[in-house]
Amino acid sequence: MTRLCRTFQTAPAAVPRENSAKYLDSGLTAEGFEAPDWLAPDIEDGTAPSMKAEALENTIDRLPEYGPDFGGEIWPRVEWSYADPSFRERGVDQIDRLVGEAGDHLDGVVVPKVGRRDDVERARAAVAEAEREYGYDDGSIGLSVIVETARAFSDLREIARLGEDSRLTGLIFGPVDYTAELGGRAMDGQRPQWAAMLERLSNEASAADLVAVGGPFDQLFHERAGVTYYNAPGYADQVTREATIGIDGSWSLHPKQTVQANRIHMPTAEELERDVGKIERFVEAKAEGSGAVVLDGQMVDEATYKNFANTVATVRAIDETHPEQTADRYDADLVERARAVELGFA
Amino acid sequence: MTRLCRTFQTAPAAVPRENSAKYLDSGLTAEGFEAPDWLAPDIEDGTAPSMKAEALENTIDRLPEYGPDFGGEIWPRVEWSYADPSFRERGVDQIDRLVGEAGDHLDGVVVPKVGRRDDVERARAAVAEAEREYGYDDGSIGLSVIVETARAFSDLREIARLGEDSRLTGLIFGPVDYTAELGGRAMDGQRPQWAAMLERLSNEASAADLVAVGGPFDQLFHERAGVTYYNAPGYADQVTREATIGIDGSWSLHPKQTVQANRIHMPTAEELERDVGKIERFVEAKAEGSGAVVLDGQMVDEATYKNFANTVATVRAIDETHPEQTADRYDADLVERARAVELGFA
Amino acid sequence: MTRLCRTFQTAPAAVPRENSAKYLDSGLTAEGFEAPDWLAPDIEDGTAPSMKAEALENTIDRLPEYGPDFGGEIWPRVEWSYADPSFRERGVDQIDRLVGEAGDHLDGVVVPKVGRRDDVERARAAVAEAEREYGYDDGSIGLSVIVETARAFSDLREIARLGEDSRLTGLIFGPVDYTAELGGRAMDGQRPQWAAMLERLSNEASAADLVAVGGPFDQLFHERAGVTYYNAPGYADQVTREATIGIDGSWSLHPKQTVQANRIHMPTAEELERDVGKIERFVEAKAEGSGAVVLDGQMVDEATYKNFANTVATVRAIDETHPEQTADRYDADLVERARAVELGFA
Repeated sequence: MTRLCRTFQTAPAAVPRENSAKYLDSGLTAEGFEAPDWLAPDIEDGTAPSMKAEALENTIDRLPEYGPDFGGEIWPRVEWSYADPSFRERGVDQIDRLVGEAGDHLDGVVVPKVGRRDDVERARAAVAEAEREYGYDDGSIGLSVIVETARAFSDLREIARLGEDSRLTGLIFGPVDYTAELGGRAMDGQRPQWAAMLERLSNEASAADLVAVGGPFDQLFHERAGVTYYNAPGYADQVTREATIGIDGSWSLHPKQTVQANRIHMPTAEELERDVGKIERFVEAKAEGSGAVVLDGQMVDEATYKNFANTVATVRAIDETHPEQTADRYDADLVERARAVELGFA
Repeated sequence: MTRLCRTFQTAPAAVPRENSAKYLDSGLTAEGFEAPDWLAPDIEDGTAPSMKAEALENTIDRLPEYGPDFGGEIWPRVEWSYADPSFRERGVDQIDRLVGEAGDHLDGVVVPKVGRRDDVERARAAVAEAEREYGYDDGSIGLSVIVETARAFSDLREIARLGEDSRLTGLIFGPVDYTAELGGRAMDGQRPQWAAMLERLSNEASAADLVAVGGPFDQLFHERAGVTYYNAPGYADQVTREATIGIDGSWSLHPKQTVQANRIHMPTAEELERDVGKIERFVEAKAEGSGAVVLDGQMVDEATYKNFANTVATVRAIDETHPEQTADRYDADLVERARAVELGFA
Repeated sequence: MTRLCRTFQTAPAAVPRENSAKYLDSGLTAEGFEAPDWLAPDIEDGTAPSMKAEALENTIDRLPEYGPDFGGEIWPRVEWSYADPSFRERGVDQIDRLVGEAGDHLDGVVVPKVGRRDDVERARAAVAEAEREYGYDDGSIGLSVIVETARAFSDLREIARLGEDSRLTGLIFGPVDYTAELGGRAMDGQRPQWAAMLERLSNEASAADLVAVGGPFDQLFHERAGVTYYNAPGYADQVTREATIGIDGSWSLHPKQTVQANRIHMPTAEELERDVGKIERFVEAKAEGSGAVVLDGQMVDEATYKNFANTVATVRAIDETHPEQTADRYDADLVERARAVELGFA
């Protein structure tokens, strides 16, 4: 998996400000660690119903302007609902206009609130239809879905398998809608974490070579004694849990979240030093002919080895698209070693 | 989901007492918070083998007497086993007699120890057959199953989907049988909680619009220094975990458990005040035209909104069937606001 | 489930020592609690690529010598990969030679890194083919698979169902490869425990009457102030978590781990005393005609009863194959009571 999506940042595509594209503009022009790997101009729930038309216009207007210089991928979120055909009609129209008027600057579209597999197939058909209509190559416009209904989780294996030979690219968790649909409640202030469902999401995404993204964290700010402050630990804890189980990226609602998720889904200098070092020592021991190499009290086999190699491969992918991030975090020597080390096991 | 099942109380339908229907009578005549939403006269594991015939007679005898005044639903638990045809034969006979002699007072039957989907289809056919034989409308007698075998969990998605267009109404977890079948053990006194399986149960129930019910908690009493006391915290902790992940109701073995589960699966006054208030403020902000409403540091979209609305909808459902419970717990003003507030998002 | 597999010990079948079969020999001749229920001569990841041919020869050489006196089962691990046909070709050759030259001493083969169901069917066909070629009865050589890829977990239900009427015997978890494939990371030193996936593995194994085995624990040794010591608590914690959810056995990389897992998956004297006692009291109460028996504040039904009976059944299985282990752990009186007590519920 070398498709980089440490961060999936949604930006309301129209807000009631003097510049209604304020958040869209700032997402598209963010720099350094504030630049998300994927930016999702949000025409859906983040935008007021009265401003959705303007949100679509803003997106179509801004992509040709900022898209060419934006380092990451661009994935507008359109309207949809497995339960409501009027939402799907609006979604189909939005997909049609986005592909027709800004298709050169789109990596794909994000479709929320999908139901069972047949509903995902409907969304897929809408993208394929727009692609054909405007002369884009088959499969050139991607589709990612937000998994936030009981029906989508029930069919998750079947939905993910649509991705094995098609345009489906990412599975993104939507816990707020999901909790509401299941009738879950924040007891004693604790919302459900859906640990089992996240393991399944990570598994099915990997089984079909899709990107897996965690859900949004909306407790952006806390207040204490009259001072409101950014809730940095709360978001970091969630992103850390996601990274542990192989969720590739995290949902960001704010540039500060993007900074955190970009960093947490990026190996630390210690991790990179350790894993580059292990691979170097492994290659050396291998050359000396001994079979089961023992490093730091652990037996290393091909599977163990892959864990070290994953660290290096991720750093290489970041280095290609955001060299300023690798330069910021690692010594130049270490980056050089990560570029140079041989990654094959055999 | 407006079918109310905060409590699924099993009552042994015959016990070796002067009045062998003692527990059945007390369940059917319970009042206030002791009244379960669903009462299951238990002809299965709660009743001794030698008393099962009497248990069936007691049930058939008492339902016409107490059923009309019982506020909740009545769901006798019959015998069954995916692994043993003699149990299934007894179950089919029990279903036949219950529908034939007390069908007017039954909401459905509970079938335990089901296996894979084909076994649930057998149980469904038994209910359909009795319904036809005694002239009840197709689908008027419900079926709920106890999910307590490895085979039923393996087929859970397929079993739940039987409910999409049929009489299947509820999925009830049975952890004791389940743990035994998997060979699980209470290590250091800790029994497995099956957190992942409960998430799946909640998900598949919601995906097919079924009621999900947690498993029994049989450590009813503790003893300390010669005094035996009701284990109130133990049960409350389990019910709280279930409510968090959207399990609709909890299994009760005792009127005190029914009191607790009815209350825990009922929003607190603070929750109702908060969520009615949020909806009122949301409606106001919406009327002022601003799109992404921020309340208490959280952005509110349609999905977030549903969480508030769920609270109000549950209270309304309780208020319709148990007005004494809403009167007990909430100020009259607050109940009035919950009845009055407009629940649509758009 | 009476197939005993408390321990699945892998032994590298060739190492660069004077006696290259050192670990294989010591596994096959281990005694007492060091004797694994299943020994897996490892021709795969535990053996260096340059020594794999020698590993196969060692296995074929040692099984006729030590197999007849080895108390447990023998399951060599061959090479395989769902993703790489050259690995599968080597695996097919290894299976052919093992069955052809040591088939009398094999209980089955362990195939790692399987993918979706069709890949497991390929492995199954390879065993069937060797069986036919060398005149063994159909199904006499078993197949167990290591579940360590996203594809295998995605298809776990379908793979397990192959075991319902075939040679498939065990599902063994492989967390290191699995974590690598999903891109999981040890954050703050914590590796993912995959609790939800283990619940599924335990469930699907039980649903198809297969043995379920947990994953290896490779942090064998810790170092403190210059002294390296065996990490007994770390492994015991993992095995305990596995036993709680009905995982039948644990993976062992070292005789000390085998000692621990054999003991943890074996009821303690207190457990056996308690459960034999409960069954004795239950049988007594039953004879007195009372239905719902209450023991120690818990209502006992058939399902509860099975938990006690499982304890006794496991001890009996150990007593048959390793009487020195039951003699070591329990009083002779208690073993006698466990042998004598009647286990049926009805």
